[in-house]
Amino acid sequence: MLQYLGYENSVITLILSTLFLALWNMWPTKKWDPRGQFCYVTGGSSGLGLAVAIALTKRGAHVTIVARNEERLAKALAELEKTRQSSNQILRSYSFSLTDADASHAALETAAKDHGNRYPDAVFMCAGAARPGFFVEEDAKSMQKGMDNTYWVQAYTALAYTKQLVRSQTSGKLVFTCSILGYMSLIGYSTYSPGKHALRGLAESLRSELILYNSSVHIMFSGNIDSPGYVEENRTKPKITLEIESTDKPTAPDVLAKELIYGVQRGDFHIAPDMLSNIIRSSTTGATPHHNVLLDVLYALIGWIGLPLWRRGVDSTVLKHRKEHKDYLAARGFFKSTD
Amino acid sequence: MLQYLGYENSVITLILSTLFLALWNMWPTKKWDPRGQFCYVTGGSSGLGLAVAIALTKRGAHVTIVARNEERLAKALAELEKTRQSSNQILRSYSFSLTDADASHAALETAAKDHGNRYPDAVFMCAGAARPGFFVEEDAKSMQKGMDNTYWVQAYTALAYTKQLVRSQTSGKLVFTCSILGYMSLIGYSTYSPGKHALRGLAESLRSELILYNSSVHIMFSGNIDSPGYVEENRTKPKITLEIESTDKPTAPDVLAKELIYGVQRGDFHIAPDMLSNIIRSSTTGATPHHNVLLDVLYALIGWIGLPLWRRGVDSTVLKHRKEHKDYLAARGFFKSTD
Repeated sequence: MLQYLGYENSVITLILSTLFLALWNMWPTKKWDPRGQFCYVTGGSSGLGLAVAIALTKRGAHVTIVARNEERLAKALAELEKTRQSSNQILRSYSFSLTDADASHAALETAAKDHGNRYPDAVFMCAGAARPGFFVEEDAKSMQKGMDNTYWVQAYTALAYTKQLVRSQTSGKLVFTCSILGYMSLIGYSTYSPGKHALRGLAESLRSELILYNSSVHIMFSGNIDSPGYVEENRTKPKITLEIESTDKPTAPDVLAKELIYGVQRGDFHIAPDMLSNIIRSSTTGATPHHNVLLDVLYALIGWIGLPLWRRGVDSTVLKHRKEHKDYLAARGFFKSTD
Repeated sequence: MLQYLGYENSVITLILSTLFLALWNMWPTKKWDPRGQFCYVTGGSSGLGLAVAIALTKRGAHVTIVARNEERLAKALAELEKTRQSSNQILRSYSFSLTDADASHAALETAAKDHGNRYPDAVFMCAGAARPGFFVEEDAKSMQKGMDNTYWVQAYTALAYTKQLVRSQTSGKLVFTCSILGYMSLIGYSTYSPGKHALRGLAESLRSELILYNSSVHIMFSGNIDSPGYVEENRTKPKITLEIESTDKPTAPDVLAKELIYGVQRGDFHIAPDMLSNIIRSSTTGATPHHNVLLDVLYALIGWIGLPLWRRGVDSTVLKHRKEHKDYLAARGFFKSTD
């Protein structure tokens, strides 16, 4: 009897200490506060970027949004004005094409002018776009455009901002937004996944390097976002990819914006906004810092078994699609073209 | 007593079945034979590429090597001739700049002419280069060059080859060569890791997509290679990165070439040529197919504990380097420049 009690006690102790450690890890120790901070948000005119800008404005930050489309920028700025917390908050919008290195640099310099040539305390890189398609229907130009709209649109801003930080001997926060397609990939994403994987690589290199300058790096890996960009990407998305994703429900931008800011506040390097992204994060963690070690073990175990099963399902769906795909390519004249 | 025997028996059964499963997984079921196959090797004039070309020639394949430097190509072709197994083997070399999309296409078309306009049975993409450095000392041009020499130098060949395969309705093998810096990263590799991560993303997308065409994708993740390229990259490698890597011993190209070909023969998607790369592979596996599930669990466990410990060590080395790095940047005039 005693030994059973002992066994039960051990189990209870184990559960309690697990819970304690789990809660301990979740407890914000030195929470970053956006109030009064100068936050720079790219892709800030719509989707996730706009949601992040609104959330930061609501938390009392000075917010500058940058995007290409002037009309959408004006509307977005009007929305920010509506959520302003005080008359002191500096809210601005600028139109720049961030797939260009010089423009990415100029955009930051312009934004800094509104703050007495001080650079942002945090840069939220939310710009990006996906144009899914079949690899055999891509060409060098569409592949390069894919890399521009996933990788360079954030990397150029990161480069300009890091130089400004180090040169002005201040510290800051680089916040990248990636995708679970930066952890893994599937049919249809040959112009998207490479750039998103590249962002993971850049962030991992910079996390290590920016220790030199007391600056931090964060990167969020989310699933599909319920945004104008998602509607746009589904127009070119192959039918087979849509079929595989048919059970996915895109997440609302404001939910992701909240998770992104929480992640930065907690100081997470990899920010996973929901259970699925946590499972994939923990299953591809490598040398990346763990979050809560105990929860991560659980996620990794689920991923270890679940992800290969999911992949087998996808593989067999692709295999069944062979005949239809050949007909599709023939109808598009692929077998007659010569590029 | 009986229960102890039973326990021992269970353990023995467990060990035996583990060993059986491990051996079963290692056993090549339908081994690819390079003999008589048309193999195309990029970066084939030196380092890993040349070693792969020699190994394939020794196994009786027709081998075409492509690289930029004509002098080195001529020497390499002479080496291939020395290892020729029969007079029927077609051994060729061509000079093309594979960071260019059109040249990558033209190189494959030229090679196909020697085989009656038949495209290669397997393409080994071994071209690539690293120029490590500090992120704040990079510019848009050096970042783009980094992407050219890691990602595009293989992606353009993959694009041209896949189109040719699908259009000619044949099947083939795409073999990428990546690095463990495509799984993780550290200080000094901001122009290298992104492109290598991008290759992982591309390969993962194509593995899924090329099921449509009965073609296979393989990608090797190796550590440093004892090659002319390694000597070259160490010239620009930051001192701190050299210090972190000081215990690494680069692997001989012929050892890696052998492992690469074994991996392709076994049909592995991710090819890890040694224990360290297997540990990192298993720790970042995600939805990527497992190799031997039991061995992979062991590798993943080692990685789960070991890799974060290694990273902490690296982080503290970087932290200690702050003062020296600031002096270095000052001496280079970084704080006075304005780019």
